[in-house]
Amino acid sequence: MNPRVAAIEPSLIRAIAAKKKPGSIDLGLGEPTLLPQQRFIDAAARWAAEHGVKYTVNAGDLGLRERIAAHYAYPGMSDARNVCVTTGSQEAVYVAIKTLLDPAKDELLIADPSFPAYAKMAQLEGVAYRHVHMRADEDFRYDADAILDAVDRATRVIVIASPANPTGRVLHDAGARRLAEGLLARGGPPVWVLQDEIYRELTYVDDPGYVAQYYPHTVVANSLSKSNALTGMRIGWLLAPDGAIEALNKTHSYVTSTASAFGQRVAYEIFGEPGALKEQSAWYREQLARVIAALDASGLRYVPVDGAFYACVKLPRGHDSLAAAMELVENRGVVAIPGRIFGDSLEGWLRLSWVAPIEDFEEGLRRIAAF
Amino acid sequence: MNPRVAAIEPSLIRAIAAKKKPGSIDLGLGEPTLLPQQRFIDAAARWAAEHGVKYTVNAGDLGLRERIAAHYAYPGMSDARNVCVTTGSQEAVYVAIKTLLDPAKDELLIADPSFPAYAKMAQLEGVAYRHVHMRADEDFRYDADAILDAVDRATRVIVIASPANPTGRVLHDAGARRLAEGLLARGGPPVWVLQDEIYRELTYVDDPGYVAQYYPHTVVANSLSKSNALTGMRIGWLLAPDGAIEALNKTHSYVTSTASAFGQRVAYEIFGEPGALKEQSAWYREQLARVIAALDASGLRYVPVDGAFYACVKLPRGHDSLAAAMELVENRGVVAIPGRIFGDSLEGWLRLSWVAPIEDFEEGLRRIAAF
Repeated sequence: MNPRVAAIEPSLIRAIAAKKKPGSIDLGLGEPTLLPQQRFIDAAARWAAEHGVKYTVNAGDLGLRERIAAHYAYPGMSDARNVCVTTGSQEAVYVAIKTLLDPAKDELLIADPSFPAYAKMAQLEGVAYRHVHMRADEDFRYDADAILDAVDRATRVIVIASPANPTGRVLHDAGARRLAEGLLARGGPPVWVLQDEIYRELTYVDDPGYVAQYYPHTVVANSLSKSNALTGMRIGWLLAPDGAIEALNKTHSYVTSTASAFGQRVAYEIFGEPGALKEQSAWYREQLARVIAALDASGLRYVPVDGAFYACVKLPRGHDSLAAAMELVENRGVVAIPGRIFGDSLEGWLRLSWVAPIEDFEEGLRRIAAF
Repeated sequence: MNPRVAAIEPSLIRAIAAKKKPGSIDLGLGEPTLLPQQRFIDAAARWAAEHGVKYTVNAGDLGLRERIAAHYAYPGMSDARNVCVTTGSQEAVYVAIKTLLDPAKDELLIADPSFPAYAKMAQLEGVAYRHVHMRADEDFRYDADAILDAVDRATRVIVIASPANPTGRVLHDAGARRLAEGLLARGGPPVWVLQDEIYRELTYVDDPGYVAQYYPHTVVANSLSKSNALTGMRIGWLLAPDGAIEALNKTHSYVTSTASAFGQRVAYEIFGEPGALKEQSAWYREQLARVIAALDASGLRYVPVDGAFYACVKLPRGHDSLAAAMELVENRGVVAIPGRIFGDSLEGWLRLSWVAPIEDFEEGLRRIAAF
């Protein structure tokens, strides 16, 4: 067997979820509780009745790729050929890490706190990786200069999620410009930026930054999972410039061949209706106002929520986040995710998702504050 | 970039398909022309309206896995925990090759002629591979002893597709028993058999062999693509015994996270209706009778069709299969796939698929015979 598979530790999130008791308040969820827009699923079912559900080309249905490319209209990647449709953003990120990095010599730099899959994918590929930690005393804001300072000669890809899971922080426009400027000023082979935009439609600041606007060596990963409550539809995509997209498509073609043609048709309908990607965003904005009120009332320290649907709260000094999460799930009827899962910099914090009904979030927060 | 990605040559099948002219007869298709059973898609759409389309657990929906495991009821892998639902059989095979082989020392043995993706996946993973050629003078029948003789100390996985793409040959029950017996008699660490059963429901012999019935170190890959005309639904699965399935699930969880929940629901409905997997098989049996009549009338030598929906025909001695396929697509209005794509042993042959209307197959065959 492949020793790299064996070496990957099992998911702590799953270990905690497995301890959840009936009636517990689940603030561990990583997916929307809203229902998806059924009209798009019904339209795809009608389409299937007429056309069947056949292979698309490996990169994905041309019409869908045209719509995706035109929607984002990033410089140098606004043509259908710059899009690779994937099995969710998970495959998108996996294919990018596998393709853009040479395991023999390249290194992945991960802006932390971060979604643990980035590091685990690198492990699986035998790719070296390093974390650059955003600072707790700056509420984990993305610091472009800190990221630039961490780039070394082996660094070939920087992965940055904005809005971020777990912190909910957003790379601001000025930060995206600074990152682009700093990377362009470097000599030598390009350092790629892989921006994970999966929470893009759930952004609550006015000046979010998209590195692809400013920097030609950017690859973007995204999906319908969070924006359209379609986590289970498994439709994501990569956007990449000429020179990179061909290799990404090749890897994708051997890993999964193509994404679901049915899911692609759902996506085609969504991208064809102006506003459909943002239709559910209003719910999150309304929920956020109540979440902030509850956080303020709790007296707990929390990270400003720029985007996504998480709130990170600080445990009292000296508390271990895993022990706290275990105590909460076993004895207090609350599922919360320990910060250490997202890197050392978030140890001492808990990640709470707020997709559950607001009363549940408030009650969960009361129990955490009491604990 | 990853040099292993760059090293993989582009698909010749696609190069030929790109030359197809309007009005050409396409005998290159690798997917059914039938429409899928719409009732299952509609049932899944109704289910989505009620339940949304959420993440399933990484291995796949428990109810679906129970049905799949019970349906095949292979010894040692008849429990839901022995199933990993994947994005088509492509991801299933990819995950198996990636997980079961240590790139540092193990070798994949491929029973040829074979689907080219097996070797390309091994290349992508940096895994050594070798081909064992079935013999043209035996019409490429699967020879278990030849396969056993080719196993050496480094061989850790043997991949065998039955029914085979491209030859349509089936490993017979006696061959499966012989393979199991031979591998069990070996000392040392086990050699895994990866049996690709994607054409299982399109089998036209009475004694097909399934290695999993006789040999505990077997992993099975399959999907709904061919049996149910659902190539674009991207639902496949791996069946594997305890001790292997956990590692396969782990790899799968990082590559794609989960298969489409919508597609899984379609599969759940199909596995819940007795006979639904075989409902389209009758069409292929009827088509095959006409295909054989046309082949006999053509005077061309062809490989006996035990299964799948291909017929391999022999070119006159000295003809290069790629040159012949290029001539046919460019000047004779017929798309056929050159045998060399499937390994050296099939050089000098063409693979013709017979999913098109029988008149098209007959006309295409006439043009090939004339050429």
